Amino acid sequence: MEIGLTLYAVSLVAIIALVFAWFRTSWVVKQDMGTDRMIEIAGYVREGAMAFLKREYKILAMFVGFVAVLLFVTNLPSEDGFYRNPLTALSFVFGAIMSGLAGWIGMRVATAANVRTTHAARDGLNGALRVAFSGGTVMGMSVVGLAVLGISILMLLYGEWGLIGNFESGGSKDVQNILQIVTGFSLGASSIALFARVGGGIYTKAADVGADLVGKVEANIPEDDPRNPATIADNVGDNVGDVAGMGADLFESYVGSLIGAMILGATADMFHINLVFIPLLIAAAGILVSMAATFLVRTKEGGNPQQALNIGTFGAAFVMVPIILMIAYCLTKDVTTSYIWWKIGLAASIGLIAGVLIGITTEHYCSKDKKPVHDIARSSERGAAPNIIMGLAVGMRSTALPILWISGAILVSYWAADLYGIAIAALGMLCTTGIQLSVDAYGPIADNAGGMAAMADLPPEVRERTDKLDAVGNTTAAIGKGFAIGSAALTALALFSAFRKTANVGTIDISEPVIMTGLLLGAMLPFLFSAMAMNAVAQAADAMIDEVRRQFREIKGLLEGEVPADHARCVDISTAAALRQMILPGLLAVSVPVIVGFIDKHMLGGVLAGVTVTGVLLAIFQSNAGGAWDNAKKYIEDGHHGGAGSEAHKAAIQGDTVGDPFKDTSGPSLNILIKLMSVVALVIAPLIA
Amino acid sequence: MEIGLTLYAVSLVAIIALVFAWFRTSWVVKQDMGTDRMIEIAGYVREGAMAFLKREYKILAMFVGFVAVLLFVTNLPSEDGFYRNPLTALSFVFGAIMSGLAGWIGMRVATAANVRTTHAARDGLNGALRVAFSGGTVMGMSVVGLAVLGISILMLLYGEWGLIGNFESGGSKDVQNILQIVTGFSLGASSIALFARVGGGIYTKAADVGADLVGKVEANIPEDDPRNPATIADNVGDNVGDVAGMGADLFESYVGSLIGAMILGATADMFHINLVFIPLLIAAAGILVSMAATFLVRTKEGGNPQQALNIGTFGAAFVMVPIILMIAYCLTKDVTTSYIWWKIGLAASIGLIAGVLIGITTEHYCSKDKKPVHDIARSSERGAAPNIIMGLAVGMRSTALPILWISGAILVSYWAADLYGIAIAALGMLCTTGIQLSVDAYGPIADNAGGMAAMADLPPEVRERTDKLDAVGNTTAAIGKGFAIGSAALTALALFSAFRKTANVGTIDISEPVIMTGLLLGAMLPFLFSAMAMNAVAQAADAMIDEVRRQFREIKGLLEGEVPADHARCVDISTAAALRQMILPGLLAVSVPVIVGFIDKHMLGGVLAGVTVTGVLLAIFQSNAGGAWDNAKKYIEDGHHGGAGSEAHKAAIQGDTVGDPFKDTSGPSLNILIKLMSVVALVIAPLIA
Repeated sequence: MEIGLTLYAVSLVAIIALVFAWFRTSWVVKQDMGTDRMIEIAGYVREGAMAFLKREYKILAMFVGFVAVLLFVTNLPSEDGFYRNPLTALSFVFGAIMSGLAGWIGMRVATAANVRTTHAARDGLNGALRVAFSGGTVMGMSVVGLAVLGISILMLLYGEWGLIGNFESGGSKDVQNILQIVTGFSLGASSIALFARVGGGIYTKAADVGADLVGKVEANIPEDDPRNPATIADNVGDNVGDVAGMGADLFESYVGSLIGAMILGATADMFHINLVFIPLLIAAAGILVSMAATFLVRTKEGGNPQQALNIGTFGAAFVMVPIILMIAYCLTKDVTTSYIWWKIGLAASIGLIAGVLIGITTEHYCSKDKKPVHDIARSSERGAAPNIIMGLAVGMRSTALPILWISGAILVSYWAADLYGIAIAALGMLCTTGIQLSVDAYGPIADNAGGMAAMADLPPEVRERTDKLDAVGNTTAAIGKGFAIGSAALTALALFSAFRKTANVGTIDISEPVIMTGLLLGAMLPFLFSAMAMNAVAQAADAMIDEVRRQFREIKGLLEGEVPADHARCVDISTAAALRQMILPGLLAVSVPVIVGFIDKHMLGGVLAGVTVTGVLLAIFQSNAGGAWDNAKKYIEDGHHGGAGSEAHKAAIQGDTVGDPFKDTSGPSLNILIKLMSVVALVIAPLIA
Repeated sequence: MEIGLTLYAVSLVAIIALVFAWFRTSWVVKQDMGTDRMIEIAGYVREGAMAFLKREYKILAMFVGFVAVLLFVTNLPSEDGFYRNPLTALSFVFGAIMSGLAGWIGMRVATAANVRTTHAARDGLNGALRVAFSGGTVMGMSVVGLAVLGISILMLLYGEWGLIGNFESGGSKDVQNILQIVTGFSLGASSIALFARVGGGIYTKAADVGADLVGKVEANIPEDDPRNPATIADNVGDNVGDVAGMGADLFESYVGSLIGAMILGATADMFHINLVFIPLLIAAAGILVSMAATFLVRTKEGGNPQQALNIGTFGAAFVMVPIILMIAYCLTKDVTTSYIWWKIGLAASIGLIAGVLIGITTEHYCSKDKKPVHDIARSSERGAAPNIIMGLAVGMRSTALPILWISGAILVSYWAADLYGIAIAALGMLCTTGIQLSVDAYGPIADNAGGMAAMADLPPEVRERTDKLDAVGNTTAAIGKGFAIGSAALTALALFSAFRKTANVGTIDISEPVIMTGLLLGAMLPFLFSAMAMNAVAQAADAMIDEVRRQFREIKGLLEGEVPADHARCVDISTAAALRQMILPGLLAVSVPVIVGFIDKHMLGGVLAGVTVTGVLLAIFQSNAGGAWDNAKKYIEDGHHGGAGSEAHKAAIQGDTVGDPFKDTSGPSLNILIKLMSVVALVIAPLIA
């Protein structure tokens, strides 16, 4: 295999994805924005979102600068025989910048697409779907394009242009050294992702809880009513949390699984350079397939948009299986290695299957049409507490099957191709991130479009169309969530294995008390982390509730719709709270592996295992409980158990509110936490070897 | 050391404890029961409680019979060289009977002491304290007496009267074989404990939730009002859950830590028979000290009962430290062993200190006078959802410090005396179970006494006195909880180590996928188990709520107090639900280790580690969240944030209700679950070695 050529080709594919995203963006912004009122509201939301992102990035820049200096200094060459390179700092900064850029692009286009979707929805469902999905596509393609481009550039720089060594002439150890420096990229991506997820999550949920509890429950005005002072903040929150936060999240998942697989390829017992490049080629192929799949997402007027989305995502995943087999075949056929092509294909397919199964399970526990949600809805008739007890029970129960699927994927992919197989399974889930994320990002755009329709007093059929748009894609989103959780577990495991090899940690025997202690401490961290996130949401929401109540009380004529609400103050409250409260949990996640690692590297092994295990469990529990509460409320709103406004509905709103920080703040942050801690361990591995 | 003599002496101490309990019982039943109405109500509660226990024991008898046959058949001698003995079945049945007996005695006296406490409270606080605490003492002494007596009898039978071998002449392997058969006793105790805790927990919380949500929130009548049809069931529940359930729980903790320590003494590298008997002698000394300490619990009229309880429990713990040192000194001074007496003393002391620290932490997060509870109370002003989010956050955060204390205890006690040290640390926490449990069991008696006062329409000052009695002892109860959780973690670890040695499992390396899979599966079980328990409570509570609502609606004159409520139907609902729903979680806990063990014994190691880690975390989280919600409600009732009847109070009641199954059903059951699974593994260890 011609390595230089491969890297150039992969870079080219990434650039194509970015150009594609650019074309889509131009198309979106060319669409009409509608009435003056719509333009005005869209302006508020866009301003609020961009202002938040700017302030967030300022703080992150300081963090990145500080860590970069640390990485530079600690990686200066030393006499102890272990390979270190200050370029790690460069990789780190580059990863952080690329991740930030992906979030920024995604949000720019999302805040442009939302109001244009609303306007398109005035004419029909189909045009609205096209605008919203195009917005999502930009996000999807930017993330995968920037990720692959970033990694390729670093690999060219370090291993082809000779800044560190040369892939072609180097042995296993040299390749490992180069990749070890590339892991900084993953660390940069993970750090940004954690802060963005936590910050965005706090922002969006503080606004959401505040808007719901006072507006819907106390003042009895509908969602997104312009009289509610927290509405703009709520819509800003959808963008900073669900778009920018999720984009950074998937950027880091994607990068983590890619780099994890490459390192395990490099450290495999039967080393061959091709094993390192298989993951990269799979990713490149996934980008092309995803791009093609976006063209499948279209429907005739009156058609079923859900079907269109399903064809896009499932079609892409389905097509990827033979492609992965082909790549594996071409790259291993002439090579002496125990990893026969079909074994690599099997590992990737098992990953895909596990992802789909987790998604189906998620869908079962969270769907409006299934028993778990109906149970919660029925309990709501008896009050908030029964609703919440039932929701917690559903969330906890919903961990069982996904853990079985993940366990199965681990065992089979390991059997097929060793640790490398586990990493390939994770990559199998994530290779179609391009189209997956397009569908995921389309959701908040449609949600925002609905908000704009309500705030701009458009006729009810517009809101109905955007609501339909929002509801569609729930299944696909559930599958996406399944992939995110499953791949997080497998990637964390892959990174953990890579850490173990790099840091020269032998066995990590849980029957040794120091390991058991590490396991306990690590397992505790996701609880502490969740507590911090929820506490942050609670405090910010408290401030928001007080402010909304104050405005209703003090601004005469507000509830009558005669005087406008002071939206800006609510935006400020969310922004300040989110930025202040994201710092501590972020630092906790980054510093613990460093501290424990320098005390005892074996104990760090225990910590990583512990954090992975409870992190995955709490993430599933919280996400699914939150989703189920949300849909139980919607199910009641559909007219069951007394419908909207009934006592059952009020109880269900309380459950939904409890679920908000679960499913949008702490839950998804845990996926990042477990990988971030493993990446930190991997980056410092040469220092503690 | 004269082994036979030692065993007879230990048995004698146990018998003294039982005689002491018998004298206390006679004293309690000699007290006056008060008015006819009080006698009538007490009769209902006693009947309901005993009826439940009888039906529960019938089901358990079938389970015990079935498992005994299994144990008998699978332990028939075989040709594969591993030692097995069908007497394991005998130990198992004996353990189950002793545990059941302890629960039965405790509940008999509790249902006698409650009404007599009420009557005594008509005259003053002090007499009431004496009656209630005497009732608690019976429970405490019966549990430790029956536990030590049971183990001593088995050891005499197997190792002194020669049914299996002889302690005196046998080597390490023989002693191990004998103790392996004794573990059946622990299995019996754990099985009964799990069913009793889960069944009792479902019973009491279904009744409690039903009574609170309809009575307090909807009908606005006070707690324990006789017009509320669920009141009797609620008071029965206090007995079957908090007395019988807790008794069985502590019985199994005590037995588990004792047998775990003995086995690790027998399998220690530097084996000496004295190491096996040190735990038994510590337990015997603890019984004598506890008995003496009960006499310290008395106060002058106008004195502070809290102080009296503290002197009793802390005094006993304090006195135990030199006694443990002395026992260790006498039994190791002439013996070549690396376990010097002060190291064993250090391990035991570290256990005690860790227990106290966990208790203090628990107290901090759950106390009415501390910030966490105040935060929850303040959130209640903004509704049920903020209250619940804050409570969940407090519960999750409260896991951090206890995990640090447990980790510290593991590391120090292991450093001092190896795995044996860890087991001794657990025993250090539990050696004063006699007095601890006396204080714990006194709580529900005082609670019941208050219920009777309300139901029998006694003057308000009686209820005030019993409420004071109930409030006192909260600190001691928190410490007791700390000991229960800490010792559960350490005992599970000790049993886990014993399993590893007996089953010939070498290292359990988490970097191996099969172990990691086991870890994930094990870690998931406490979530699934909690879900089942909460679901059971939710379903039973739903039925209860419907029934109470129906009676309020259909029985004319009920709310006016003219027509009595149909209490019996509510008792029936709780009973039937509890018995039906306890079976599945119980079977899950027993069967999983067996199934996994026969698939792969190393994977079972992973499962046990996983279940221990998340079990401990979820137990702390759920117990503390529940406790904090409870006290936030009480804090508001004290007149803060609008006081009783305010919106904040209503929100706090919802939070308290969510916390009920947390703190009284699923939370405490997890302590048993983690030990039960380890004991099952230990019992089947010879079969999978």
